[in-house]
Amino acid sequence: MAGKKAKSKSVTRILVIHGPNLNLLGEREPDVYGKISLSRINEMIRVEAKATGIKVTIVQSNHEGKMVDLIGSAGKNFEGILINPAAYTHTSVALRDALKACGIPAVEVHLSNIYSREEFRHQSLTAASCVGTVCGFREGSYILGLKGLVQAIKDRV
Amino acid sequence: MAGKKAKSKSVTRILVIHGPNLNLLGEREPDVYGKISLSRINEMIRVEAKATGIKVTIVQSNHEGKMVDLIGSAGKNFEGILINPAAYTHTSVALRDALKACGIPAVEVHLSNIYSREEFRHQSLTAASCVGTVCGFREGSYILGLKGLVQAIKDRV
Amino acid sequence: MAGKKAKSKSVTRILVIHGPNLNLLGEREPDVYGKISLSRINEMIRVEAKATGIKVTIVQSNHEGKMVDLIGSAGKNFEGILINPAAYTHTSVALRDALKACGIPAVEVHLSNIYSREEFRHQSLTAASCVGTVCGFREGSYILGLKGLVQAIKDRV
Amino acid sequence: MAGKKAKSKSVTRILVIHGPNLNLLGEREPDVYGKISLSRINEMIRVEAKATGIKVTIVQSNHEGKMVDLIGSAGKNFEGILINPAAYTHTSVALRDALKACGIPAVEVHLSNIYSREEFRHQSLTAASCVGTVCGFREGSYILGLKGLVQAIKDRV
Amino acid sequence: MAGKKAKSKSVTRILVIHGPNLNLLGEREPDVYGKISLSRINEMIRVEAKATGIKVTIVQSNHEGKMVDLIGSAGKNFEGILINPAAYTHTSVALRDALKACGIPAVEVHLSNIYSREEFRHQSLTAASCVGTVCGFREGSYILGLKGLVQAIKDRV
Amino acid sequence: MAGKKAKSKSVTRILVIHGPNLNLLGEREPDVYGKISLSRINEMIRVEAKATGIKVTIVQSNHEGKMVDLIGSAGKNFEGILINPAAYTHTSVALRDALKACGIPAVEVHLSNIYSREEFRHQSLTAASCVGTVCGFREGSYILGLKGLVQAIKDRV
Amino acid sequence: MAGKKAKSKSVTRILVIHGPNLNLLGEREPDVYGKISLSRINEMIRVEAKATGIKVTIVQSNHEGKMVDLIGSAGKNFEGILINPAAYTHTSVALRDALKACGIPAVEVHLSNIYSREEFRHQSLTAASCVGTVCGFREGSYILGLKGLVQAIKDRV
Amino acid sequence: MAGKKAKSKSVTRILVIHGPNLNLLGEREPDVYGKISLSRINEMIRVEAKATGIKVTIVQSNHEGKMVDLIGSAGKNFEGILINPAAYTHTSVALRDALKACGIPAVEVHLSNIYSREEFRHQSLTAASCVGTVCGFREGSYILGLKGLVQAIKDRV
Amino acid sequence: MAGKKAKSKSVTRILVIHGPNLNLLGEREPDVYGKISLSRINEMIRVEAKATGIKVTIVQSNHEGKMVDLIGSAGKNFEGILINPAAYTHTSVALRDALKACGIPAVEVHLSNIYSREEFRHQSLTAASCVGTVCGFREGSYILGLKGLVQAIKDRV
Amino acid sequence: MAGKKAKSKSVTRILVIHGPNLNLLGEREPDVYGKISLSRINEMIRVEAKATGIKVTIVQSNHEGKMVDLIGSAGKNFEGILINPAAYTHTSVALRDALKACGIPAVEVHLSNIYSREEFRHQSLTAASCVGTVCGFREGSYILGLKGLVQAIKDRV
Amino acid sequence: MAGKKAKSKSVTRILVIHGPNLNLLGEREPDVYGKISLSRINEMIRVEAKATGIKVTIVQSNHEGKMVDLIGSAGKNFEGILINPAAYTHTSVALRDALKACGIPAVEVHLSNIYSREEFRHQSLTAASCVGTVCGFREGSYILGLKGLVQAIKDRV
Amino acid sequence: MAGKKAKSKSVTRILVIHGPNLNLLGEREPDVYGKISLSRINEMIRVEAKATGIKVTIVQSNHEGKMVDLIGSAGKNFEGILINPAAYTHTSVALRDALKACGIPAVEVHLSNIYSREEFRHQSLTAASCVGTVCGFREGSYILGLKGLVQAIKDRV
Repeated sequence: MAGKKAKSKSVTRILVIHGPNLNLLGEREPDVYGKISLSRINEMIRVEAKATGIKVTIVQSNHEGKMVDLIGSAGKNFEGILINPAAYTHTSVALRDALKACGIPAVEVHLSNIYSREEFRHQSLTAASCVGTVCGFREGSYILGLKGLVQAIKDRV
Repeated sequence: MAGKKAKSKSVTRILVIHGPNLNLLGEREPDVYGKISLSRINEMIRVEAKATGIKVTIVQSNHEGKMVDLIGSAGKNFEGILINPAAYTHTSVALRDALKACGIPAVEVHLSNIYSREEFRHQSLTAASCVGTVCGFREGSYILGLKGLVQAIKDRV
Repeated sequence: MAGKKAKSKSVTRILVIHGPNLNLLGEREPDVYGKISLSRINEMIRVEAKATGIKVTIVQSNHEGKMVDLIGSAGKNFEGILINPAAYTHTSVALRDALKACGIPAVEVHLSNIYSREEFRHQSLTAASCVGTVCGFREGSYILGLKGLVQAIKDRV
Repeated sequence: MAGKKAKSKSVTRILVIHGPNLNLLGEREPDVYGKISLSRINEMIRVEAKATGIKVTIVQSNHEGKMVDLIGSAGKNFEGILINPAAYTHTSVALRDALKACGIPAVEVHLSNIYSREEFRHQSLTAASCVGTVCGFREGSYILGLKGLVQAIKDRV
Repeated sequence: MAGKKAKSKSVTRILVIHGPNLNLLGEREPDVYGKISLSRINEMIRVEAKATGIKVTIVQSNHEGKMVDLIGSAGKNFEGILINPAAYTHTSVALRDALKACGIPAVEVHLSNIYSREEFRHQSLTAASCVGTVCGFREGSYILGLKGLVQAIKDRV
Repeated sequence: MAGKKAKSKSVTRILVIHGPNLNLLGEREPDVYGKISLSRINEMIRVEAKATGIKVTIVQSNHEGKMVDLIGSAGKNFEGILINPAAYTHTSVALRDALKACGIPAVEVHLSNIYSREEFRHQSLTAASCVGTVCGFREGSYILGLKGLVQAIKDRV
Repeated sequence: MAGKKAKSKSVTRILVIHGPNLNLLGEREPDVYGKISLSRINEMIRVEAKATGIKVTIVQSNHEGKMVDLIGSAGKNFEGILINPAAYTHTSVALRDALKACGIPAVEVHLSNIYSREEFRHQSLTAASCVGTVCGFREGSYILGLKGLVQAIKDRV
Repeated sequence: MAGKKAKSKSVTRILVIHGPNLNLLGEREPDVYGKISLSRINEMIRVEAKATGIKVTIVQSNHEGKMVDLIGSAGKNFEGILINPAAYTHTSVALRDALKACGIPAVEVHLSNIYSREEFRHQSLTAASCVGTVCGFREGSYILGLKGLVQAIKDRV
Repeated sequence: MAGKKAKSKSVTRILVIHGPNLNLLGEREPDVYGKISLSRINEMIRVEAKATGIKVTIVQSNHEGKMVDLIGSAGKNFEGILINPAAYTHTSVALRDALKACGIPAVEVHLSNIYSREEFRHQSLTAASCVGTVCGFREGSYILGLKGLVQAIKDRV
Repeated sequence: MAGKKAKSKSVTRILVIHGPNLNLLGEREPDVYGKISLSRINEMIRVEAKATGIKVTIVQSNHEGKMVDLIGSAGKNFEGILINPAAYTHTSVALRDALKACGIPAVEVHLSNIYSREEFRHQSLTAASCVGTVCGFREGSYILGLKGLVQAIKDRV
Repeated sequence: MAGKKAKSKSVTRILVIHGPNLNLLGEREPDVYGKISLSRINEMIRVEAKATGIKVTIVQSNHEGKMVDLIGSAGKNFEGILINPAAYTHTSVALRDALKACGIPAVEVHLSNIYSREEFRHQSLTAASCVGTVCGFREGSYILGLKGLVQAIKDRV
Repeated sequence: MAGKKAKSKSVTRILVIHGPNLNLLGEREPDVYGKISLSRINEMIRVEAKATGIKVTIVQSNHEGKMVDLIGSAGKNFEGILINPAAYTHTSVALRDALKACGIPAVEVHLSNIYSREEFRHQSLTAASCVGTVCGFREGSYILGLKGLVQAIKDRV
């Protein structure tokens, strides 16, 4: 246990999870999903991570179950989770429970401002299990969310 | 791009997606799910496709994430999607988003008349992302839906 | 009874009912009501009827009561009803009851996709009394609905 | 005025209004609409009227507007209204307003027990403008309602 | 069994149940509860019973449990129940279940027109377990309800 | 077309539609419907029209379908519609659609202040298809609405 | 009548009714129900009554029907009612009706602040039939409620 | 009192209140707030007032409390209130109470048609305390509302 | 206290409460209430109790107040409560409060699966005050519930 | 700190806040707002304060923000708050938060019985942040609330 | 068929399905998920199975689609299903449909009492397709559910 | 205009608005409002502003109207708004309209995670008029929100 702690002190590891349909970013319907591709966003996240001296592992999945798997086992290898649950934000109790049970802080981010879209997108089932949320800043939401998550991890120790 | 269009002119390709529990068709509870098996429905779809001069690829999945994967990548290989989202019709924002983002027209079909079943089946989250819907004609819904989809693709060009 | 059946075998007779405001089709607001006129749609329905070897009688009415009258007496002269209840879809229990009581199968069609319009258009009071519904294919909804209705009448015998 | 009162004292006149689809009674779906025909019910009402020494005028209409017309002008020729608004019970504010404005007492009757049918049939928009309601006694509802109405007219004088 | 039937043929026995607060009738607030006392209503019921050749047993109780007791054991000694559940109409699932389980037909009556009072009085939990309902005719509701109940018992045999 | 425009310039024609039960105005229940008769209101409208130099055609109907007919064909003979949909304000999607489709501006008026009556009268289905609404000024609502409509027609040219 | 009034002038008589589960006060779960026992509260009420020169009769019952009985007959022997309906506050239309019909003023009290408990405790069905309510002052609610009730009785004369 | 009445006869005084954000009119977002500035609207109101021979005092405030202050003291110096409560229309019970308590008639106006905007703008908390409402005629709403208010004040005398 | 504990160790005492209408079990409507009588169920409970070495006291009541009485005093003589609140499950806050206040664990059981009946039976007001619930196993629900309750009592010590 | 405590022991200071429109009390609409003026109520509060040996500071404001200011700074100069939030009771989360944050106990009072007025007045957003509430006793609510508040402050020490 | 039945008689086979996040049991947040690990629960299930003479196959999955797959094919190899749908209980129509279609009885179990958690956990979409449910007994829910399921299978034969 | 743009290029000016009760931060209830004082947060904001080379003006107000005033005139002196609307987030349409009308981008921040508090705090009326939102990071929300706002202003040019 002590060894693990020592290790985690040397470098903070963050799991970044992109939810359903985010693989389509930039390719189609730029006014809905923005003009930037997911790989470009990942690049930006890695640049920010390097600058902050942390390590990120990035995954994209359309599968609610896969996302629950990842979150459930994240506690062993990561100190925090940065997640864009996309459509599952509004429907997934399973993700809500996983984020609550995983034992490490999570931050929820959204590209768009969910409050200026359809009414069923105004509620978030997952946010209650997170430290905080950032939404509406397009790709910037990930960068701001990452900063907030890193600080939350520091405050925890 | 010109080459692709030329190709798609020669033969229209349709992705047919059967949603959760449709693999059980015909085997059990015939008064709920009809007496016809899914393989027999697929045969009917293929006969209709041949008659119309189009090409169909048929997939069945119980996994919402798998269905989102299929729809997300359909734009590269197909000109349209014929989908029976079954139970996910009423609960999946992820499928709604995928159908909106995929860039090709989709048609939603249902075997039963969803308006004469439980109240929670009266609303469809996915229909708003489709060209149109056909429901209540048992296996006929697929054939009518396919005809409508092919016409919608033609009208688009 | 046998005589009637023999007669109905020789040629299937369908009553087509267009509901309120459909007389205005094509003349105004083409992006809401489409560019095609009702008389052109009726022509298409008649061509399809001829091709299928059935006989159609077409009526348009803005009067809920008139539509109830027509449906109530349809059982004597027709084997099926193709109906676009338009605005009454969402408000008329009287049409719902008439369609249930008339003793012959009915199919509900809509020009537009009611799921991508105002929320009060998402529910249908009349659909529960019909065999099935077709919506969103513009004038094509009538042709697909007619095919489905003819098949439903055949399956009944 | 005195002359009219004198006249109305000599014989009470009741307007009986059957709402939408009641013309189909007995002919079809006997488990929904009962086995008795509307003409047989009218005969029973006339027998009861004769026995009670009142005069009845009976009308059936599928038209909400026609029913509003009848109620609006009833005050001049009748002392009371016996009405089965059928489907319009649950949707017509116009009938509610007409019954309130017409100046003579009305009684609402239903063949079936509306509380053991679909939930949208549990509420009545029209009942609030009536003296009372009788429902669930099949054709008997008309006879009981007529007795109640005659008594209500007597109590008024 | 045959003996019992023979006996019940000779004279129909009805249990009349007055629900909570009906003991206060006529004494107070005549514009809410009417000017007539409960004992006077009971007298009227007995006169009507005598005229019809039936036998009535009349009980008033403010206790939901007592009313359930009475209904539960009514099947052994009565052929029908005439009940004014008063306030329990709107809140008692126990009475609804008792009326459904008791094995004999019941008729629900109300002095006032429940549709022209507070909105929570518009729904009846108990009516769905009854043959029919009569409301709004003041004390006349009991007499009309009794007539309807006697007919319902006859139709049953 | 040019000829028609020239003609409509010379004199503005307005169709005034009174909805259900407004024929009863003044005759009965003056505290609900006001003391003024409909013919007196029409006289006032005609005086105002004359003063403004416009031409009015006035119709009263209790039939939703008739009102839809009138609105649907109004575009050919009128430049604007002044309508008091009365009870249909709260229940008619058909009128909402007709007013949207008719191609000329409409103004909705009410004699009473609908916000100080029953809650179901607080919502208007038809108002969304009108330029504006005026309510609560008794007969004055028609005069104010007419002024507003004439100005709206002018602003349109 | 004069004699009764004279008598009631000499000393005001109040009926105090404790509703369901209040007999358990102080014995169990002190953080929910407070540390004080019901007999101690009754003692406090009696002290206050003596000081004010009024006479109190105190009853506790878990039976809604018993409480309705007590209220219904209170008008003969008491000038006012001080009631803690406890759980029945939120479910009993029967108590609401009894309090309205009983002919003497009532005051509703609660030990706890019902607004800081579960949402279904925020509404009171019984309060609308009372002069006023006092809640949240633990046993003090009874004393304050009694003072308010006595004043309300005085203001009535 | 007589003196005051005499005075108010000589000239009718109206308080015009513009609610929150109306100071921004014309400067920004012309498609939402119209192209006309508030000072231009006030000029139009003053011209109309002069023509009608009344006196207007015009105030704009973003403060709900300030508006309540103004309305509360208006009864002493004015005969009527013309108010556009803007955003407070949908949220302010305080304004509703002030308008009810102030003792002089008020008319509510809106620039836009609140029925064709977001659903939370369809309800008005304040309208129930006003004589009537005018909405959707842009700046014309003020002029029509002023005419209606002046008439309402005359009818009162 | 030690003595009591010692005593309660020697034999666990359970109070079994059957709620309203359960006395009618088996006699009537076997498809709703099952074919087994309450006395037969009680026999099975006693056999199970004997096998487990515990002591059961069984009561049936149709009275909510009686059930509250029993639960309120149960803490003195029993270590646990097995309760089928039947209809009161969905309406009784008093039972919810009693079960919470009584100081001993309770288990709620139902003969039928409440989730496949009317929607108002899907919610339980009482379950939140119990350790757990068992439903749908007909008479088996009591046996399973008893086993669960006995274990819960053991885990408590 | 000790000094402050010593000081606050010598005399309890209470801040009394009257919310919007209470300045109009007695002047207008006596059946809504009572016949007593606010200054007379304040006099009564001062008499009661003197009798109890406490010191009161009384403020009336129509401004939600002003009331929040007062509550926010009350902790420094007062030991308790007596507040009638009037219309803001039903709409102000800001007052709810202020009362929770201010660090001293508050009591909410209302002149009228909010449960017998419009339904939107049945809920209180502010009550959850108070010790308790008193409503319906007209001016007496203030006196009873003050007594309750003083006791609550004593119990706190 | 006979052979299969013969085989299934020799030993009953049960499929046990643990839903999302149950793999995390015991490792984290013991007050939410209990102190016991899933492997320990499985051990207890196997002991119980052995004692009862049945055969269990146990699977855990976070994937809704995987769970639907398992249930859909369970009919061939198992006589019953014991399922803890966890978070999917409240959101999955797909599981509801699968359990209804699979042709063998299922029992739903929950570790915690879902009625004392967040309100969205009070409803179960899946329970309606099961024989019965057991919840709140921690790991004991599985053992009780298994007993109930075995009995249900026996009763079926 | 060019001059103004030139000026705003030289240094970006941000208006920071703290809503109701935020002046109490740190002084009281640290577990609700955090341990940090508002002046310390302002200091942090100024440090961040200096580091980023922007200029901030910071205001705190408990007055909704004052906040609307500030936002309405902000367009002239600032390039962006950073706002914590606190309680007004959930109730103020006026702030929503002001933020939409002001012509410069705004970012909404919250100290706490509004999704893990009372349900009425889950909805934001103001967020729809902002670029984005940041919540749950305590004082960090301001810093992240400021970074996001500055970027949004840059992207705009």
